[in-house]
Amino acid sequence: MEIKVLKDILSANNQIAERNRQLLDSNNVFAVNLMSSPGAGKTSLILETLKKLKGKTRIGVIEGDIRSSLDAEIIGKEGVPVIQINTGGECHLDASMTYSALGNMPLQDIELLLIENVGNLVCPAEFAIGEHKKVLISSIPEGDDKPFKYPLMFQKVDAVLINKIDLLPYLKFDIQGFSQAVRGINEKVGIFPISCTTGQGIQEWVSWLLTQMSRR
Amino acid sequence: MEIKVLKDILSANNQIAERNRQLLDSNNVFAVNLMSSPGAGKTSLILETLKKLKGKTRIGVIEGDIRSSLDAEIIGKEGVPVIQINTGGECHLDASMTYSALGNMPLQDIELLLIENVGNLVCPAEFAIGEHKKVLISSIPEGDDKPFKYPLMFQKVDAVLINKIDLLPYLKFDIQGFSQAVRGINEKVGIFPISCTTGQGIQEWVSWLLTQMSRR
Repeated sequence: MEIKVLKDILSANNQIAERNRQLLDSNNVFAVNLMSSPGAGKTSLILETLKKLKGKTRIGVIEGDIRSSLDAEIIGKEGVPVIQINTGGECHLDASMTYSALGNMPLQDIELLLIENVGNLVCPAEFAIGEHKKVLISSIPEGDDKPFKYPLMFQKVDAVLINKIDLLPYLKFDIQGFSQAVRGINEKVGIFPISCTTGQGIQEWVSWLLTQMSRR
Repeated sequence: MEIKVLKDILSANNQIAERNRQLLDSNNVFAVNLMSSPGAGKTSLILETLKKLKGKTRIGVIEGDIRSSLDAEIIGKEGVPVIQINTGGECHLDASMTYSALGNMPLQDIELLLIENVGNLVCPAEFAIGEHKKVLISSIPEGDDKPFKYPLMFQKVDAVLINKIDLLPYLKFDIQGFSQAVRGINEKVGIFPISCTTGQGIQEWVSWLLTQMSRR
């Protein structure tokens, strides 16, 4: 019974996600669903991406949080359109919430939409929101065992960023072992070690992103 | 309709949690539900707690993970009874899974049961599992804004540990501001800065734990 309910919810969600996708495509907007644990660096990555693409690519941002508009306020200072979604308790963005946010986003004025999901390694992996690509931000302090513990998330994404590599001198994290574990679950995924603090690896991430946009 | 289903699920869960609590009480076992983001240090805290209480308090451990038994294997080496729960996709432990694990735990041989929940700052806060106390492990790399973004979790717990304080020289984290934000949500919560790497603050945490056990 519970499983039936979940299937119905996911099926309804997928239909709305499909509608979102059509809306994005008809406006030539490429959308990326950014997911991670709490505090892995989604907002910092958006800020670094905005910096690199300033004057080159017109970007909009949707900020998903259970509560608060802290991140939307930070992003808003960068002078790009930003819409806050507060899920009001829900542990993930769904397609319907995203649809409402898209209605308030000036889609005709942007080419790239970065959507920051709720900080959670589990539930967001199950809900399509109409995005073209799914990206996961892992981070050094979380430890290198996460692919074994949260396999669905690693399986579903198109790229894995390993953030906070500036902390490698102070923490145990086997980047090679981690990457092998990720590739064991998801053979073709892009893996990018980065630091939003030092800027290391951000160029490679942005190049990947632009390549994906151009291939659409 | 969705809300009705969720209410039914939570109500059924609470009934089983109550049964778990009676089972624990009838065996004089004090149970703690340990929650955190992925990689904040739940397993490390259990290891440090086992070290401090070795020969003093008889401890059992339940390890909750979506998949894998990595943490249970680590804890098992310490020579304490450990039961692994694999939720098979579910983003939190519920009372029913916990009931099954309790059936395999030698309750008559232990006084303290440490239950490591799935790494997630959202969903575990909603599901009682029969525990006497709920404890949240925050960590320095996650950032000090989490109480504003995940208020339910901070509201529900009896203690907040701030782990990885050995990383304070390398990261921005305002402990005083964080503590004020936590107290704004949950006035009476215990707050303990700790490091499972250096051992700092572990004695204070263990003292709090023993006091809670003695007050039961």
